Amino acid sequence: MSRRIGVGVDTGGTFTKIVSVSPEGKPLRELQIPTLAADGPRSFVRRVAEAVRWEQSALGAKAEGIGLAVAGDVDAERGMVRFSPNLRKFDRYPLRDALARAAHRKVLIANDANMAAWGAYVVELERKARNVVVVAMGTGIGGGVVIDGKLFQGSTGSAGEIGHTTVDPRGPLCACGARGHAEAYAGSYGIVRIARKLLRGKKSLLHTLCPGLKELEPRLIAHAALEGDKIALAVWEEAGRRLGLAIADAVYLLNPDRVLIVGGVSRAGRLILDPIQAVLRAQPFKTPFDAAKVEIASTPNLGAIGAGLLALE
Amino acid sequence: MSRRIGVGVDTGGTFTKIVSVSPEGKPLRELQIPTLAADGPRSFVRRVAEAVRWEQSALGAKAEGIGLAVAGDVDAERGMVRFSPNLRKFDRYPLRDALARAAHRKVLIANDANMAAWGAYVVELERKARNVVVVAMGTGIGGGVVIDGKLFQGSTGSAGEIGHTTVDPRGPLCACGARGHAEAYAGSYGIVRIARKLLRGKKSLLHTLCPGLKELEPRLIAHAALEGDKIALAVWEEAGRRLGLAIADAVYLLNPDRVLIVGGVSRAGRLILDPIQAVLRAQPFKTPFDAAKVEIASTPNLGAIGAGLLALE
Repeated sequence: MSRRIGVGVDTGGTFTKIVSVSPEGKPLRELQIPTLAADGPRSFVRRVAEAVRWEQSALGAKAEGIGLAVAGDVDAERGMVRFSPNLRKFDRYPLRDALARAAHRKVLIANDANMAAWGAYVVELERKARNVVVVAMGTGIGGGVVIDGKLFQGSTGSAGEIGHTTVDPRGPLCACGARGHAEAYAGSYGIVRIARKLLRGKKSLLHTLCPGLKELEPRLIAHAALEGDKIALAVWEEAGRRLGLAIADAVYLLNPDRVLIVGGVSRAGRLILDPIQAVLRAQPFKTPFDAAKVEIASTPNLGAIGAGLLALE
Repeated sequence: MSRRIGVGVDTGGTFTKIVSVSPEGKPLRELQIPTLAADGPRSFVRRVAEAVRWEQSALGAKAEGIGLAVAGDVDAERGMVRFSPNLRKFDRYPLRDALARAAHRKVLIANDANMAAWGAYVVELERKARNVVVVAMGTGIGGGVVIDGKLFQGSTGSAGEIGHTTVDPRGPLCACGARGHAEAYAGSYGIVRIARKLLRGKKSLLHTLCPGLKELEPRLIAHAALEGDKIALAVWEEAGRRLGLAIADAVYLLNPDRVLIVGGVSRAGRLILDPIQAVLRAQPFKTPFDAAKVEIASTPNLGAIGAGLLALE
């Protein structure tokens, strides 16, 4: 029996996930290895190739290809990372070709949020939508765009950076150095910043859950909000409204039939979805906003799954 | 001799332009007729069909098809206008099929800025770029998107509305009713509004050119700026910076290799281009902004030309 299998590798700053998938995006086997970014790309390539061999032998099947997802500025054509803040030693190293040689498989490389967008499109939407904007909520906010059923990566592989669109030119600093980007409000550090601002001098469950607000994180703020804490609710309301404006801009430009929100922070569910939808419903243009259904996607490991799926395209 | 010809019809609130074009977008014959919007769509369709016959007979060639460009919300699938503020009587009328019957030609219909984007792509760029964002500067700001060499119209034909992306959520009102859209700063009424604000209590050539500032328009403000008038220069600077932020957002999302600025107001040239480019150069992400070349396109009648070209696709 010959099964079609793709392997997706999601390269994080700390851990790397290696997931073998079916053409429908079903994860068949998963492995997590430490990235050991400081050891540089040669060691990384060797260990990933080894892990791919294990998975293939356990599954009794050869992968058709490997998709490599990396957070950062990726040059898909040359098969390398231009710049990745958490993988500095990988910059300009011929990652794609080195892994292809080590694993004896064809390899493609792309930005991790683009890969996650493709995974979400295939697994969550079963390719049933035509044009999709994916928003990936984590520490930062990434994104990806599907156009006419295909992953659109733009002219230099940089498309889909919805987290860096400006929501308020006088707003707080984004990690990238610019002001008022969507990420500066709705990336996890942006949400925590809103919380610290709103909590100043106010009573809240969060002061009890998190004394001194030192290890404050979105998960705790969601917990407090679900307990009815007014400040915590207001935090999600503000983060959602700000992100909603960025999504509205994407709808004006791209007129998608779906907007999918993925990533760890999106587990806040309706806390973040309700204010986003309120902003979209308030737009004066009815046709594109009625057409754009917004949903939260719950599948884990979409970056690795999308990378494996893209290797099968 | 059989020549391939497409006819483009650009339907304005007052005048309608009918242009026959070659497959390269060369205008072969042009005609302008009054739209007479108040007379309703039946009279309009009859007169356009007649004009198309004249052009065909003068050229001694049959058009392969007719492209109909309309300002407003266009339902390309059903072949009708959903809503057009200047053509209220045309709403929901089966414009495409009626014109196809009257002119014995296949007809397609789309938003005028999308058509202009396609015209600019073929005529100005000779299809040499892959991904293009077109910004159409007039009373309002429209736009269009070319993806992988094809006009992208989105899920409901509404894509490319860069004029309605938000630049500042506390900004002035847009004609659509929302706050701080790019059009509210860089549509002609937005530019005039900035001028009135900056001129208050200040000396300027514009007070001489335009006593009481009653008939103030972008052309005059450009004239004064080229004469070195400081206030007029500051008006273009502000309009350009605001529009530049909207274009930056489009670059983050779409990663185009070109941004083309078209339409009457873009004749301001470097006055509007310089501040736009300053905003793009200031973005922290270098790869997509180095790749996105911004230009002003000078071809007139791009809406009609693009419509004629699209009918030939």
